[in-house]
Amino acid sequence: MTALTLLDYGSVFVFALTGALVASRAQLDLVGFMFLSALTAVGGGTVRDLLLDRNPVFWIADPTILAVAAVAAVYMFFTAHRFESRLAALTWFDAVALAIAVPAGTAAALESGVHPAIVLIMGVVTGSFGGLLRDVVCNEVPLILKQGELYLSAAFFGALAALAAIWAGLPQGLALLSCAVVTFALRAGSLAFGWRLPVYRSRPPRRPGRSGK
Amino acid sequence: MTALTLLDYGSVFVFALTGALVASRAQLDLVGFMFLSALTAVGGGTVRDLLLDRNPVFWIADPTILAVAAVAAVYMFFTAHRFESRLAALTWFDAVALAIAVPAGTAAALESGVHPAIVLIMGVVTGSFGGLLRDVVCNEVPLILKQGELYLSAAFFGALAALAAIWAGLPQGLALLSCAVVTFALRAGSLAFGWRLPVYRSRPPRRPGRSGK
Amino acid sequence: MTALTLLDYGSVFVFALTGALVASRAQLDLVGFMFLSALTAVGGGTVRDLLLDRNPVFWIADPTILAVAAVAAVYMFFTAHRFESRLAALTWFDAVALAIAVPAGTAAALESGVHPAIVLIMGVVTGSFGGLLRDVVCNEVPLILKQGELYLSAAFFGALAALAAIWAGLPQGLALLSCAVVTFALRAGSLAFGWRLPVYRSRPPRRPGRSGK
Repeated sequence: MTALTLLDYGSVFVFALTGALVASRAQLDLVGFMFLSALTAVGGGTVRDLLLDRNPVFWIADPTILAVAAVAAVYMFFTAHRFESRLAALTWFDAVALAIAVPAGTAAALESGVHPAIVLIMGVVTGSFGGLLRDVVCNEVPLILKQGELYLSAAFFGALAALAAIWAGLPQGLALLSCAVVTFALRAGSLAFGWRLPVYRSRPPRRPGRSGK
Repeated sequence: MTALTLLDYGSVFVFALTGALVASRAQLDLVGFMFLSALTAVGGGTVRDLLLDRNPVFWIADPTILAVAAVAAVYMFFTAHRFESRLAALTWFDAVALAIAVPAGTAAALESGVHPAIVLIMGVVTGSFGGLLRDVVCNEVPLILKQGELYLSAAFFGALAALAAIWAGLPQGLALLSCAVVTFALRAGSLAFGWRLPVYRSRPPRRPGRSGK
Repeated sequence: MTALTLLDYGSVFVFALTGALVASRAQLDLVGFMFLSALTAVGGGTVRDLLLDRNPVFWIADPTILAVAAVAAVYMFFTAHRFESRLAALTWFDAVALAIAVPAGTAAALESGVHPAIVLIMGVVTGSFGGLLRDVVCNEVPLILKQGELYLSAAFFGALAALAAIWAGLPQGLALLSCAVVTFALRAGSLAFGWRLPVYRSRPPRRPGRSGK
């Protein structure tokens, strides 16, 4: 419960920073900063709570969450210009937020006692939907669909690591930690070193055997 | 209860007009008009009801709401060409709808007995999400993010006015009225006279002290 | 119940194929394929279940649904290049999925005992929102808003056919079948023969009487 609350606060703050960075790129006023910060910060967890029918939704149960997002928005409103590249800052903050939100979503789903496949989905949804809403509302191609980067895959294998750790008998705290580590490592490795999974190729090789793979 | 129902009907009708105006710009058929009208008309209140777990959602409880939206769609299908500028009509109808929907959302949240911060959010969400869904579905940059206009801010300060009036001991009817007045005045002032809040500037002034503000 | 489950499985599989086809056009990796497949496949039914407060959401109650979507994603990942025109394949698979999802949504709404107008809406929503989410997330103009094609109208008249059949005293199975047939016939007729409803025209004819129609 407490670990989950802490994870929620952490991902809210860092995702709120990314929402505010997008607001700075759109040159919005402070209310616009707060709106995009809050949408990004609580979007993933809200979808998770609606799907799992967790009532009330986490930020309605604890409005301090919104204050956390608002602080991040105000902070960014006055300091976003300090970042040399706001796009790079956005991408890296987003990676950190993802690595906190995926274990948060996984933990909430474990608490709800749902099927392991649903736990996996909730980890991915909680991690990705805040940023997805942010990008869709701003009419940009979502970060999660950027070609040749690990994003959803980082979240997926992070959530899978948590499940594997629990199956192996590790305590939940360690499982969530390994989830965060795997998610961040994959996402950061993708950004820094170009790690990627094979992508769909529209022109198949000549060998007749390939498509039977 | 009755005031809330009336507000819901009013915002549904006017938001439906804006959805139909967007449908006319996209040259859709009558079913397309009805879809965009209904989506815009009930979108904000639906998100409010889902978040607050109000069951059933207001238009499922009272399908007459949908008839109201359908009437607006049919009316617009045959008369949209009469507006000299459909974009101007869209913007101003949207302003009126916003000024009805924000008190509607605020009233519904007050009824649910949630934290004042949540009341504020629900006012903004009910006011803005219908138009947001309309714009996102049509793949346009949402009106709420248009640079240098008061939109979310108008909703925000409108909802804040309602809360302030209630804290000051005014009856709820007056509080909702002041909410509508403040919301419309700010939005209309922004459209007609260019009122705006300071926006984020990417290049900070030279003075070293500023960013410490 | 069983008919509904079968319809859900069928529409999940075919909508998942369309999500995977979009993923192939965006050249995503396998996790991206699975994400878009699942979003498209369960999006409409999920919105239906949230609106009707059906708990748990159908794919949380039965995670096999997700396996069906995953199978479609994997299949497409290795075979999408075989389609001569992936856009044509996408459009036609989408038409088939629509014709399965509309009766599925209608059946679920009938089961919930809501007002006939809500049954109609749920048919349209279940049919259209999966593809809508797919297109919005990929930042494309939604298929449902493509000018001069029957899409929402096909879903609308399909759901209406189901209601009419039930009012006429036909058993539910036949009603759902006529819903599927009408939906597919209208959508296919629109794609193959250019069937369409009159669309809004921004320049009215000279005759003074028209707008009073």
